[in-house]
This record gives sequence, C-alpha cells and structure tokens, in this order.
Amino acid sequence: MIDTLRNVFELHGFMGIETRAVETGASLLKKGETSKQIYLLSRLQDVGHESDEPLAERLGLHFDLTVPLSRYVVEHTGDLTFPFKRWQIQKVWRGERPQEGRFREFVQADIDVVGNGTLPDHYEVELPLVMLEAMERFQAFGLPQATIHVNNRKLSEGFYRAIGLSDVEAVLREVDKLDKVGEDEVVKSLMQYCSANREQAQACLKLAEIREYEPHALREKFDALCHSYDVDTTSEHYALAIEGVETVSMILREAEKVRSHAVIADLAIARGLDYYTGSVYETSLEGAEELGSVCSGGRYDNLVSQGNKKYPGVGLSIGLSRMLSYLLHTQGAHANRQSPATVLVGVWNEENRDASNAIARTLRSRQIASDVAPTAQKIGKQIRYASRLGIPYVWLPADPNAEPGSENATDQVKNIITGEQMSADVNTWVPASEYGKQEIVVGSESAPAQ
Amino acid sequence: MIDTLRNVFELHGFMGIETRAVETGASLLKKGETSKQIYLLSRLQDVGHESDEPLAERLGLHFDLTVPLSRYVVEHTGDLTFPFKRWQIQKVWRGERPQEGRFREFVQADIDVVGNGTLPDHYEVELPLVMLEAMERFQAFGLPQATIHVNNRKLSEGFYRAIGLSDVEAVLREVDKLDKVGEDEVVKSLMQYCSANREQAQACLKLAEIREYEPHALREKFDALCHSYDVDTTSEHYALAIEGVETVSMILREAEKVRSHAVIADLAIARGLDYYTGSVYETSLEGAEELGSVCSGGRYDNLVSQGNKKYPGVGLSIGLSRMLSYLLHTQGAHANRQSPATVLVGVWNEENRDASNAIARTLRSRQIASDVAPTAQKIGKQIRYASRLGIPYVWLPADPNAEPGSENATDQVKNIITGEQMSADVNTWVPASEYGKQEIVVGSESAPAQ
Repeated sequence: MIDTLRNVFELHGFMGIETRAVETGASLLKKGETSKQIYLLSRLQDVGHESDEPLAERLGLHFDLTVPLSRYVVEHTGDLTFPFKRWQIQKVWRGERPQEGRFREFVQADIDVVGNGTLPDHYEVELPLVMLEAMERFQAFGLPQATIHVNNRKLSEGFYRAIGLSDVEAVLREVDKLDKVGEDEVVKSLMQYCSANREQAQACLKLAEIREYEPHALREKFDALCHSYDVDTTSEHYALAIEGVETVSMILREAEKVRSHAVIADLAIARGLDYYTGSVYETSLEGAEELGSVCSGGRYDNLVSQGNKKYPGVGLSIGLSRMLSYLLHTQGAHANRQSPATVLVGVWNEENRDASNAIARTLRSRQIASDVAPTAQKIGKQIRYASRLGIPYVWLPADPNAEPGSENATDQVKNIITGEQMSADVNTWVPASEYGKQEIVVGSESAPAQ
Repeated sequence: MIDTLRNVFELHGFMGIETRAVETGASLLKKGETSKQIYLLSRLQDVGHESDEPLAERLGLHFDLTVPLSRYVVEHTGDLTFPFKRWQIQKVWRGERPQEGRFREFVQADIDVVGNGTLPDHYEVELPLVMLEAMERFQAFGLPQATIHVNNRKLSEGFYRAIGLSDVEAVLREVDKLDKVGEDEVVKSLMQYCSANREQAQACLKLAEIREYEPHALREKFDALCHSYDVDTTSEHYALAIEGVETVSMILREAEKVRSHAVIADLAIARGLDYYTGSVYETSLEGAEELGSVCSGGRYDNLVSQGNKKYPGVGLSIGLSRMLSYLLHTQGAHANRQSPATVLVGVWNEENRDASNAIARTLRSRQIASDVAPTAQKIGKQIRYASRLGIPYVWLPADPNAEPGSENATDQVKNIITGEQMSADVNTWVPASEYGKQEIVVGSESAPAQ
C-alpha cells in the first residue's frame, strides 16, 4: 500500500522527504490539543533526572507529519523551490488508549504543498483529487468508494459571527463532536461553553446539515439559511462566509470534471485543529462510515512562518494504519502467500546443493524470486515446505543419478497448486502470471497455502 | 537504496516484517553492552513520575533489529514455518554522541534465518552472499568493492582455551579493540583484565594476524600457530577450534564458487556482542577501511529460546545510514534531480488550466510523472521553475489563441537541458531514457539543475 501511495504521489510530482522521529518539546507543544499524547524520550542513564531538562528542550516522538514539515520548511527554505510539493509516509506515535482503528504507533501518509507568501487556490482541489486517486487504487485491496467531504473555515467563521457567535474556535470544537455525541449534546455544549442561545445553537446545527454536490444549490441553501436567521448580507461576516462558499463551489466544480460525485460539500466538517484557515477535508468510506475519516486535512495560511514571512499550505493525511486495519479485519485482505518466492528449488542431496543454488541464481537474475530447500529431505517434505509458505512452484533439478532419457534426467517444474509438472529450462521458463508474485488479495480469493 | 535491498532480499525468498519501534525494558536490557544508549519513553502527563514504573516494564526505542526479531519469533512461533527467513529495514535509535557515520537515529537493513531446534550450516555462507549481492548493486551508487571478513567463535574460543585463557568473552572484547587502540594497548589490556601473561597475549595477536582466502592455507597457518604455542592437538579445545576452522573453510570454499575473493578468513574479527556462537562477519570497503564495518553479523545458537526450545539463527545487518552518509559525503552520490516529475506541463492562462491538467492526467496514466505549472506566469518563468526542480521536459499545450497551422497550434514538448523542441502527442510521446526518471547518480555526472 505504501508503494501504491508513493507511486501516485510521485506521478503527481510530489517530492519524498523523511524527517527524524523526534522533534523538540517546543515544536511539539505548539498544538495544544494532542499534547498529553506526546511521548517524551530520556536516556537510560538519565533515569530519575528527566525533569532537570526544560520540556521545550526535551525530545519527543512526533505525533503527526505536519509539525515536522513546518520545521523542515523553515530550516530548508533557502534550498526549496516554491510551491514545495512533498509526500511523507512515516510512523507517528500518540499515547492513546489503543483500540481497533486507534493505535499508539501508526503510519500516516501525507501530501502537502507549501507556497512562499502566496499559494494559488487550485491546490485546494488538486490535493484532494490526488488522495482520491490513491484511494481508488486501494479498491483493489477491498477499500469501498471514498467520498471527500469539504467545508471551509471562512464559511463557518463568517456564518457564526454573522449570527452573533464570536468564539469561533469553541463553536468549531463543539460542532466537531456532532458524530460522536449527537445533536442534543452539541446544542447543550454550544449554550454552555460558547455563549450561544438556543436559536443560535440551532442555527449552527442547521448549517451543519447542509450537504450538497452542486455549487448553485449550495449557494441557494446557504443563502436561505442566512435569510431565515436574518443575516445582514452587507456585513463583512457574510462576505467572509461567501468567500468560503465560493472556494467550496470551485472545488465541487473542478472535482466534478475529473471524478463524479467524489467530493461533497459538507458543512458539518469542523476539524479539531485550529491552524486551518480555509478548506477543510474529511473522507468517508461507503458502508464504513463508523470508521471515521480515513483522510483529512485542510488549508493553513499561518502554520509555517519565519519572521514576517509566511508559507501558506494545503495538506491531507491518510491514516494508513486505520485503513489497513479495516481492510485486514473487515474486508479480509491478506497476502496471497507468506513467501515472496515464486519458486522453491529442490535439493536431491547435500552434495548437489550447488546445482540447486545455481538454478536459483539464474532464476533470480531473471527477477524470479527463488528459495532453495533448507535440507535435502524427501522431496514430498520439500513440497510441503513450499506449500506451507505458499510458494507455488517447486523446481526439481535433473537427478544426477537418473537414467539418461528418463523424466528425471531433465529439470522439471511442478505447480503444487494445480499439480501440473513439466520439463523446464531455467533460462526461459516463466511462471504463469497468476502465480508470479506475492500480492494483496481480498476475501477468500486466496492462492495456494495448505 | 532501500528498494534495492528489498528487491535483493525478496529475490532470495526472505519475508519482510516490520516491528514496532518500542520494546520493553526487559527485552532491551538483555544485552548489557548498549544499555546506556537506550532511549526510554514516557508520556508527557507522567513527567516527574517516570521512575515509578519498573525499568523492565517501561518502553524504550529498539537499538537494533535483533532484539525485536527474537521477540517476534517467540511470539509467532506457531504461525511461522522454519527455517524462517526474514528481512527487516527500519530505523533504530542509540543515545550516542552524534558524529560523521555515527547517528542517534539510523536505518539498519537486516536479514536473518532462524531454525527451529537446528539450522543447517549452509546458511552461514548463503547469508553473507546475499549481502554481497546487495552491496554489488550499490556499486552503481559509488560504493567500492566490499569484502566480508569471517571468523568463528569456536575457533577463537578453542584457541584461547587451548593456550590457557579461560575468560573468552573478556579476551574477545579486548581483541575487538585492535583496530581502534592498536596492538600494544590490547596486549596491556589482555594482561590486565584477562589474566594473560605476555606470551598468551602475543598468541592472541598472532591469531588475529591470520588472513587467508584459501582453506588449506588457513588450516596450515592455524596449525603452525598452535604448534608454536605447544597446543595439545588431542585436546577438546583444539577440537573445538578445528570445528570453527572447518566452518570458515566451508564458507571460503562455497563463497569462492560464486564470488571470487569476496570473502576472506580474518581471525581478528571478534564482534563485541556475546550472543554469537559460530561464524562472525564484518565487511570492509576497498579504500574506505576507516569507515569501519558496514555489514556485520554472525551465527547465534542461543539468542532466541522459549522454555527448552531453541531457535538458532544466522543474521547480518547493513548499516545503511553509515553507508549512505559515505556515498553522499565522500563519493558525491546525489539525486539527478529534485523532483520525481519528468514533465512540467505549462499553463498559458488560468482559464486553460483544465487543458494542462488533462495533459498531465494522460501522461500519468502512462506512468510518466508530471507536474503542472503552479501559475500561468510567462512561459520563461515556468521553464525556470522546471529547471530549478530538475524537471527535464516542459510540455507546451497547444495555444488556444494560435493561428491554425502555426507551431503553437499543436502540443510541443521542450527538453530544457538540450533545448530540443518538437511537436508531441500526449498519447504516444515518451521521454528519452536518460531523462526518464529520478535516480541516484555519482560524482558530477548530474542531469539538469544548476
């Protein structure tokens, strides 16, 4: 799956980077929300004295790939060509309570584009489309159809302010819980923590109900909602909201040209993180909505800065481990065989191991992965060894003691799944394409094994 | 380089595994030597209370891939088919003082084969040969010729005991320092810490001087040394040493059939780690001996055990980061270009970005990595953007405003390195092979970019 992602990302001109697993406490603690989940490091010899070092200077494991990117861009700004498009696939760590789909160590796959000073809007539709292309490739591994849900911070902020709510971050934080706690609880929280009255809280829910594929309908629904709450359409707040509506509309329009109905405007999307300033994305899988978002991100104009220079960016992150866990445990994805070897070369006796090694060497030089039997036990046992590893072919070298002209006097290759056996020349033989390589298969469509 | 290793390992039937970055203190602390270099983890919320948890139960980052393998085999013994051949390429961490070629975070690439109860000797030559094949592939990236130096613990132990030294581990530890501290210091230490008299210490040095490609000569030199120190050739110690000599001889003989003079018996090889019980390996690079060993390992019969079951193994580890650092800083290895994209599709104006996107999509569907110009600035600036990223081709879409029949009325592709420009069809055009992909080049043999 990582190979697939890398291929898609590089086909789109993203450059791969890898950053160290650790960042300083100062970098990691910028984002308040996840701070409790940070793993700090200490050397064994410092046990008992960990707290002597200020938190900001201690090292901790990164919990996402955005903090490292932000440091990377600032450190390498002189060497980079902007807009800088990078992919990064690495492990990240969070001190969470582990459960299905939620791990303490997991792999994230990120793409971001970062501009120097400015960044054109078209990236706000191009990046989600790259992720959609990647997820389409995963359909071969059992992934259902993915839909990217898009909203815009300007839209939310403009609307909340227009109806008189000023603590935008707090409102977003509560609306973000809709899926988990339900409408009643969110209304309660909005009233309790965000100084909303019941009508304002209801307005927030109404906004969150809007889902739309079609740009004009989106604008109509939004304007109707504003109208029903007496929003002043000459206000700066309304203007800000309309900026957001227009970006969302642009995304719907452009995405529709490439992938029909793969992107939907969903004004319930809030995202917990407060560094987003424009588009925000989450991704649902058809029939697996309970899994939560498998690919999220957004536009951030102020995350990366150096002095008075700003580096606005757009980025999305695939939660690869969560997705893989779903494919393995719900969709039955699995490797078609344990061993990458396509051929097990048999060994008649230890004195003739050389001959078997030579056959394996030739096959490997032709890019046919080959193992050699561990011991010269009875050929039935060697076949059983291949079978346990899922190796589809056993190569039987010409038996040095065979009668000339007999079957055993030439190399034979046996497909242990079909039982077929035939004479074969090590310089020209090729495996049938369905047995050629180790790969991911779905459900019961398995290859050999026992 | 990781792709190359993976390809070589899988061609030989090794199965890839990946283990979590952490192990328990109990697992990590089994090996005394590196314990001070272990990084322990603690959650931010536990700062100040780290020491409340017993060290054995705390989590620490793995410092090699052998400890995780040993745990993995024990945990999955029921699911594995033995001999179990696995490759593993991961980051490891050591709290060392960082310097050129020595890092606190680095990548190791390991292959091991682990048997259940027994493990045939032939793996003691096969595994080093796999690593040699991998390192030969690295010659394309500037790696010099590699030579694997092999010794055997039985040989060393038998000889040391035969001349009256009983603290074998201590002797090995001192002999292991020969390269670093020189002969005089080692003699001193052997006398000081290993109860050796001057003659015994000298004998250890004489043994360490033996280097030999040829099995018979090896046996002769060894026997001559034993004779000169009046070793009793009927003793069990001598018999043990000869077992070791014979394994080394087998390795020399078998390796010579496949790769001439790529493996040498070098009786100075000691290896610091005490879990090796048979062959031990280190690897030198021609003309870069000061780099130290870039690929080391050995046979261990007692590392992995469960109850009274033993899982003997043979394994080698390539220090990929150290090797890469050498290639980058000494050999001038570098990427031929920054961007994986082969083509930058130009954009005449933002209204026509769709046309450029469509061209890029078609090229990508044909596995030609393509980027699209970030903005519709003057074409000269777009070319400069491509040039800065090392993208060799700029695709100029048919200009919608061009005179019919004129050059600009059809798609053109320009090689910005050679300056060549020609009409091109997006469905059939292919890049020249020398500009086809991002790859590692050596020295000044660079592609574009300035």
